[in-house]
Amino acid sequence: MQITTINIVLQYMLSKAQSKHIRSLTQQKFRDQFQQFIAEGSKLATEWLSSQQSVIQIVATREWLDDNRAIIAPHNEALVIEATEKELEIITTLQTPNQVLLVLPYPPVIPFPASADKWYMALDGIQDPGNMGTLLRIADWYGIEHVLCNEQCVDIYNPKVVQSAMGAHLRVAVHYSDLALSLKQLKMPVYAAILGGDNVYHCNRSNSGILVIGNESKGISDAVLASASHLVTIPRKGGAESLNAAVSAGILCALLLPQ
Amino acid sequence: MQITTINIVLQYMLSKAQSKHIRSLTQQKFRDQFQQFIAEGSKLATEWLSSQQSVIQIVATREWLDDNRAIIAPHNEALVIEATEKELEIITTLQTPNQVLLVLPYPPVIPFPASADKWYMALDGIQDPGNMGTLLRIADWYGIEHVLCNEQCVDIYNPKVVQSAMGAHLRVAVHYSDLALSLKQLKMPVYAAILGGDNVYHCNRSNSGILVIGNESKGISDAVLASASHLVTIPRKGGAESLNAAVSAGILCALLLPQ
Repeated sequence: MQITTINIVLQYMLSKAQSKHIRSLTQQKFRDQFQQFIAEGSKLATEWLSSQQSVIQIVATREWLDDNRAIIAPHNEALVIEATEKELEIITTLQTPNQVLLVLPYPPVIPFPASADKWYMALDGIQDPGNMGTLLRIADWYGIEHVLCNEQCVDIYNPKVVQSAMGAHLRVAVHYSDLALSLKQLKMPVYAAILGGDNVYHCNRSNSGILVIGNESKGISDAVLASASHLVTIPRKGGAESLNAAVSAGILCALLLPQ
Repeated sequence: MQITTINIVLQYMLSKAQSKHIRSLTQQKFRDQFQQFIAEGSKLATEWLSSQQSVIQIVATREWLDDNRAIIAPHNEALVIEATEKELEIITTLQTPNQVLLVLPYPPVIPFPASADKWYMALDGIQDPGNMGTLLRIADWYGIEHVLCNEQCVDIYNPKVVQSAMGAHLRVAVHYSDLALSLKQLKMPVYAAILGGDNVYHCNRSNSGILVIGNESKGISDAVLASASHLVTIPRKGGAESLNAAVSAGILCALLLPQ
């Protein structure tokens, strides 16, 4: 029996131009220009490569490439670059560089589903990349496939968002729009998370709806609030003034969405 | 009528030694040595100064001191230092320095309440300062007054923890111990959050208990797990592999604690 090994590495060094290009993708203007973003780390990379979605570049150490041949092999659309740890150190956005970095294409723009019988999430001016990633991860956990954002939100392809979303980008589509307008047009129950609203435990569960989470310090803007059909609050027992935006979203998904 | 103004500023410049001392407090060994930690930002500072707890130093711009005379005045135990924005820039741990920084004493060590008829939180190896702060903030929101940690957890006086806890340190006491041993000795219902446990929606609510949250990637250690009476899971609908530790804690508090 003959064992066939496929040589997956196409390039044995990261060129200066490639290194510069990858570093440029830490900035939104270059991400938008090239329609590309980066994802780092073995866990994220293996999840991406195991999915059906396309990959532009795989930059990794020889060891990592050797260990992950099986999931790299189907990606003949990707340029596989073997890099030294030093080369990875230059392009990383992490404090401790990882063994692998992927360059990924923006997903194709798909329309927000018109006939909505599911749950969605709408984010009004979420600023912190860690919060944004965690919110997408919550949507992913609860099977929310579409998230609405407005232009005041941090870019979802910011490397810190990609990192904390833990692969949610693979399954959750994000749509940018004028949130107040979109929520009106959708004609669905809109649950806005605010302080001082109705006790969420006394709310009727619904089979469909949109959960709106507001900015970390300013909350939900007046225009968006005007489109809400339900103003809901997580009852407080102790002294904290508020809950973190992502934590609130998680609790509200647990209490509002059908089990 | 005579209007009496109290000159609250005791010192009009931050000395080099003071600046060095404050910067040393970003390191745990110096925090432990001096039994002091720092809290930054106007929101946190006003909350602290408005409480009954003591303050060692208030370092702030003239403007901030002028605006906050009423809450500073009762703190005659504190050294009030007027600093320039440049001086604050040197001592800040934030990306954009704030107008005020407090040096605070470690709170007195109090025993974990022996007769427990309330809910508590236990944290097993929480590593990320943002997660730790958010967990304390959740405890604070739900009126959980005591949190157990083991030595594998990040220091709760790490500036990033203090920042994301949003004042929880004022109301939540943290106790370090051998978690597995403590949980056994407490003889209370212990709910451990794991993947693949019992559906938390089908759990009976209890008037008292301990919610255990594990390390961000490794989960709860075997020794701690052995002390658990209930293994609970938040049911998943979508594709995400897991939820963020703090988000899980928030959801479990919402589902397990008495309303």
